[in-house]
Amino acid sequence: GTQSKETLRQNLLLWSVADVATYISAAGFPEQAVAFRTQEIDGKSLLLMQRSDVLTGLSIRLGPALKIYERHVKMLQRTHFLDEEDDL
Amino acid sequence: GTQSKETLRQNLLLWSVADVATYISAAGFPEQAVAFRTQEIDGKSLLLMQRSDVLTGLSIRLGPALKIYERHVKMLQRTHFLDEEDDL
Amino acid sequence: GTQSKETLRQNLLLWSVADVATYISAAGFPEQAVAFRTQEIDGKSLLLMQRSDVLTGLSIRLGPALKIYERHVKMLQRTHFLDEEDDL
Amino acid sequence: GTQSKETLRQNLLLWSVADVATYISAAGFPEQAVAFRTQEIDGKSLLLMQRSDVLTGLSIRLGPALKIYERHVKMLQRTHFLDEEDDL
Amino acid sequence: GTQSKETLRQNLLLWSVADVATYISAAGFPEQAVAFRTQEIDGKSLLLMQRSDVLTGLSIRLGPALKIYERHVKMLQRTHFLDEEDDL
Repeated sequence: GTQSKETLRQNLLLWSVADVATYISAAGFPEQAVAFRTQEIDGKSLLLMQRSDVLTGLSIRLGPALKIYERHVKMLQRTHFLDEEDDL
Repeated sequence: GTQSKETLRQNLLLWSVADVATYISAAGFPEQAVAFRTQEIDGKSLLLMQRSDVLTGLSIRLGPALKIYERHVKMLQRTHFLDEEDDL
Repeated sequence: GTQSKETLRQNLLLWSVADVATYISAAGFPEQAVAFRTQEIDGKSLLLMQRSDVLTGLSIRLGPALKIYERHVKMLQRTHFLDEEDDL
Repeated sequence: GTQSKETLRQNLLLWSVADVATYISAAGFPEQAVAFRTQEIDGKSLLLMQRSDVLTGLSIRLGPALKIYERHVKMLQRTHFLDEEDDL
Repeated sequence: GTQSKETLRQNLLLWSVADVATYISAAGFPEQAVAFRTQEIDGKSLLLMQRSDVLTGLSIRLGPALKIYERHVKMLQRTHFLDEEDDL
């Protein structure tokens, strides 16, 4: 991978609970960001989340939860793992 | 796809939370429409819903939930994705 | 299918919430019949029920729920769909 | 099958709610036996139980639940169905 | 397997509820260790735990739960079963 991809990936693993909450909030979900903070989701936890974890494990409303999972959690995970393959 | 199908599909992606609630209510489920509104389900969220989301994520009674999923949510999703294939 | 099978199948699709509750009660589960009524399960909803819906969606005790699903819900669904094939 | 296996199998199908509770209690889980009694689990229901039913449907603590399922429920079911095959 | 692996495996099966709680606490999750103790998870129960058991059966926050499962429960189980194969 390029230098910048490597940096992004390292950043994701280094994201704190506050970094995740800031990202979710900036993505348009400030209310749901509170739940990510309450459940102590940092970058490493984010990489381990499955669909049902986002939909029922955070106690957030279903509509936003569906979008957060499809557009953000899945996308961040995919980017992370694609970068890993890229480095092999 | 035809012009009208294209319009329908675009409309679905553009449905607001109020549009979804109006559709569910007009389909014969006014009481359950309130739950769709409370959970902030818009057209984009509707496309992402799975069976278990409708049955347990909305806190509505099981009987109506089963019908809403089979007759409406599944049908709208199917129409949407068939139209997409049609456009390829 | 024979005339009588056709009648049975039509009947199932025509069962009201009260018809379902009466059937469940007559099958030896009067207490659980109340839950079917509360959740508004009619014949059409009954055809759509899965194991987990009966076990956790009705808030009835596990022992009777297991028997109601295996002996009655599954059996009624199987009869219904076998009749459908029969008619092809 | 032998006479004794046949007897065991018939016994299992004939176990009352009290018989199941007595077995679970004697297996070292007197506290959890109460939950089996409350949920009205008799021998026939026991044969229909899946892992998730034991773990979440009985509202018992996770540690004992895991052991009761693996060591007792699964074992009794396996013995029952092996005996059935044996009789073919 | 070597003598030391055999010892480790035997130890895991012999871990008490207190041993498991001590391990989880020393791994950096003192708060969650309390939940393992409350749910009476000993070494034998730990070997039987699945992802969903850790995430929803312990009533602990999602972020730490994801890490405890991936880094500790899965790892201990894998080590245990690899040792078993090793002994064949």
